[in-house]
Amino acid sequence: MNTAHRHQALAEVVLTTLSGRFGARFSQGESVRMQHGRDESAHEPALPDGVVFVETTEEVAEIARLCHSHRVPMIPYGAGSSVEGHVLAIHGGISIDLSRMNAILACHAEDLDATVEAGVTRLQLNAALKGSGLFFPIDPGADASLAGMAATRASGTNAVRYGTMRDNVLGMTVVLADGRVIRTGGRARKSSAGYDLTRLLIGSEGTLGIITELTVRLYPIPEAIAAAVCAFPGIDAAVNTAIQTIQLGVPVARIELLDALTLSAVNRYSKTALKELPTLFFEFHGSPASVSEQAQLVQEIAGGLGGEDFAWATRGEDRARLWQARHNAYFACLQLKPGCRSFPTDVCVPISRLAECIARTNDDIARVSLPIALFGHVGDGNFHLVVLVDPASADDLRQAEWINQRLVERALVMSGTCTGEHGVGIGKTRFMVREHGSDALAVMRAIKAALDPFQLLNPGKILPPAEHLPEGTDGTS
Amino acid sequence: MNTAHRHQALAEVVLTTLSGRFGARFSQGESVRMQHGRDESAHEPALPDGVVFVETTEEVAEIARLCHSHRVPMIPYGAGSSVEGHVLAIHGGISIDLSRMNAILACHAEDLDATVEAGVTRLQLNAALKGSGLFFPIDPGADASLAGMAATRASGTNAVRYGTMRDNVLGMTVVLADGRVIRTGGRARKSSAGYDLTRLLIGSEGTLGIITELTVRLYPIPEAIAAAVCAFPGIDAAVNTAIQTIQLGVPVARIELLDALTLSAVNRYSKTALKELPTLFFEFHGSPASVSEQAQLVQEIAGGLGGEDFAWATRGEDRARLWQARHNAYFACLQLKPGCRSFPTDVCVPISRLAECIARTNDDIARVSLPIALFGHVGDGNFHLVVLVDPASADDLRQAEWINQRLVERALVMSGTCTGEHGVGIGKTRFMVREHGSDALAVMRAIKAALDPFQLLNPGKILPPAEHLPEGTDGTS
Repeated sequence: MNTAHRHQALAEVVLTTLSGRFGARFSQGESVRMQHGRDESAHEPALPDGVVFVETTEEVAEIARLCHSHRVPMIPYGAGSSVEGHVLAIHGGISIDLSRMNAILACHAEDLDATVEAGVTRLQLNAALKGSGLFFPIDPGADASLAGMAATRASGTNAVRYGTMRDNVLGMTVVLADGRVIRTGGRARKSSAGYDLTRLLIGSEGTLGIITELTVRLYPIPEAIAAAVCAFPGIDAAVNTAIQTIQLGVPVARIELLDALTLSAVNRYSKTALKELPTLFFEFHGSPASVSEQAQLVQEIAGGLGGEDFAWATRGEDRARLWQARHNAYFACLQLKPGCRSFPTDVCVPISRLAECIARTNDDIARVSLPIALFGHVGDGNFHLVVLVDPASADDLRQAEWINQRLVERALVMSGTCTGEHGVGIGKTRFMVREHGSDALAVMRAIKAALDPFQLLNPGKILPPAEHLPEGTDGTS
Repeated sequence: MNTAHRHQALAEVVLTTLSGRFGARFSQGESVRMQHGRDESAHEPALPDGVVFVETTEEVAEIARLCHSHRVPMIPYGAGSSVEGHVLAIHGGISIDLSRMNAILACHAEDLDATVEAGVTRLQLNAALKGSGLFFPIDPGADASLAGMAATRASGTNAVRYGTMRDNVLGMTVVLADGRVIRTGGRARKSSAGYDLTRLLIGSEGTLGIITELTVRLYPIPEAIAAAVCAFPGIDAAVNTAIQTIQLGVPVARIELLDALTLSAVNRYSKTALKELPTLFFEFHGSPASVSEQAQLVQEIAGGLGGEDFAWATRGEDRARLWQARHNAYFACLQLKPGCRSFPTDVCVPISRLAECIARTNDDIARVSLPIALFGHVGDGNFHLVVLVDPASADDLRQAEWINQRLVERALVMSGTCTGEHGVGIGKTRFMVREHGSDALAVMRAIKAALDPFQLLNPGKILPPAEHLPEGTDGTS
């Protein structure tokens, strides 16, 4: 199991071959390598030895064959918007930048699906769908690439209604560690034909294969859309409104919680004038009658819990402004403490435990001196803390670590997960044994070894390094 | 790769040990073995060497350890309702009957999920949910066990609205080939924490692990439910009504097609008096206003295509009778030719190709002399033929084979699948290379080898025997 962790000097012939083959599309320049050795997180950058800007699946396969024969790590790179160090070249190697593979290959409006290259972003796809009456709902905030979203099993604000990437990819083209190219799934809505390789690769973070094309589901744009904001006297009332909405089966399209600190950050960053109280942002999709029914039900629930009147945004541009403010919440929070770094957390728990999980987390927040904002996709039981630290302060880092550790343990005790949508990367590997147990982790290791025996595909991500664990705790046998 | 196909004489010590350990819960009797060596299909029975009626996960683990150490095949058995030979002991071994593991372990109404033992059936779960306001929607017709439904990635009439087993299992307890016990997933609605072992095991047909417990999603019973029947002058009009309904995004709960021959079989079997014309069965779920909106939209579509007036079933008992008649369609069709056997087919295609797929299939049906009924879950693009053959007639078998082969090839050319919901079993293994390609199949084989190196778990299912393929076509390397 040591292969991945022994950082070998990269064979000079690989760099020479890539340079000869790809010319200006291969770079060993410091700035390009730096750009590809970091993501949106606070993890220390780790630079690849070189970066190739690929244009076709066959080029990716060619690079994989080369890297495979010289045992060189390969790191797929999309938009660089991940937050757990997914694209960091912690064992060196070649970063494979898929952003130029940005063609929309087919839009089958009549089948409600589209086939795109890896680098197509969610905003690009939705722009291309203008006029078709269709849209792609998955919305992680950042304008991520669709293959990157598949690789991290991303979701976002709409997941409570439309599911996550797990539910919205029909099939993929994938380059394996040795350069073989496979197609998984198809375009049928369902299939029972063998192992679900599509779902195995979704969330595999580039460690089992490199996604070069994917077919995603599209949805008719709802006839009516309405968004609303509702402030609450306390965070409990807001959370309980979300819980009751879900338990009643109201098919809300979005139900997002922002705490008072997040609201104040949002107001400053996005020049909004929202009340700086715990707040829910809603969106309702459906026919006019259905939207009005849903809205009335949720207003009754919120009113019963002390929520203020709904402030409505029904015009498209008002809704866009509202959701842009929500999507910028992370960046807004970063401004609360200039020069700071953020440790984003990402737990997800069963909805019945959400109020308790948030209340106990707020007790912890009260015990530290750091600014910590809380917001998230509460309809799914998923929320984030943005823990702001001075990277030079050992005490800040210690406090952030304490909060994060306690939060993850709390979520796991509640049958939840350490990451609802960000992925494991390098940031959450240490929770994997605790969450899955050593035998399930051994199964994941066995699958990794079967598909990538030399540990060349994005090494060091998802699976904790076996030799760093106390004897007998990692389950390898 | 020969391990699975070399049927070894089963070690006597295994039978002696099981008999000593399980007493009357272990049987080598002919009738018990016969019952466990067949399913609802026309495949020739293949008897296991013995059957154990297990009661706990630990017992399954104990049997797995024993069988593993003696290299004896293990075949999980639930309700025996599969139709592709899934439970047939084609390499002998021990049938592990999970039907006595039928406890509902927990119902978390507030989280809309329930944790059950493997042998709990879908009707049992729904009966236990009475009064809770919740239901479990997945509905393959037979009263299958939930673990069996997970193992075959089952779906049925409600999948168009509620998804398949793929979408409705949150986590599982699974016994591995060597007796280790893992837990996959959890109770959070979403997670990005590592490889999706839950989805890998769903649809793996007992070849990667034995599911002993699972947590499934529940849904609030809709405030309003209405079912309707609509007859059409021709099958094209019925299919196009289904297609337009889906393309418009109408959230129908069920939309089932039955051809004229199926209707006549249903009338005789279920004592109904439905018009013997191509017919759609619908069900609408939602608030009263939403159900009425959906129904009106679909009635307009149907009317525009020549459909007759909707005949409504709004009372619970009328709806139950209607859907019971639909669920019995397979058995009704078997009565069309006494003494016959049926070859059920199960293709699924993108919805835009459905009309053409059915029309060309009907052209083929017109060219053979067998009675062939057509019905299915057309909202998903999934339909079945029941091809009735005299098992003693070589000509019947040849014609059935011709129809089936052409149908699968047509579906695959249309980016569809050879099996939408029945699974591969032994009946569809020969289409696996054609559907997935040899390299994707090699990935499946690599996963199987990693998790079950001695090919002991339900051997011979899903993956075609490598040595039976022309050299170079199976992709193993």
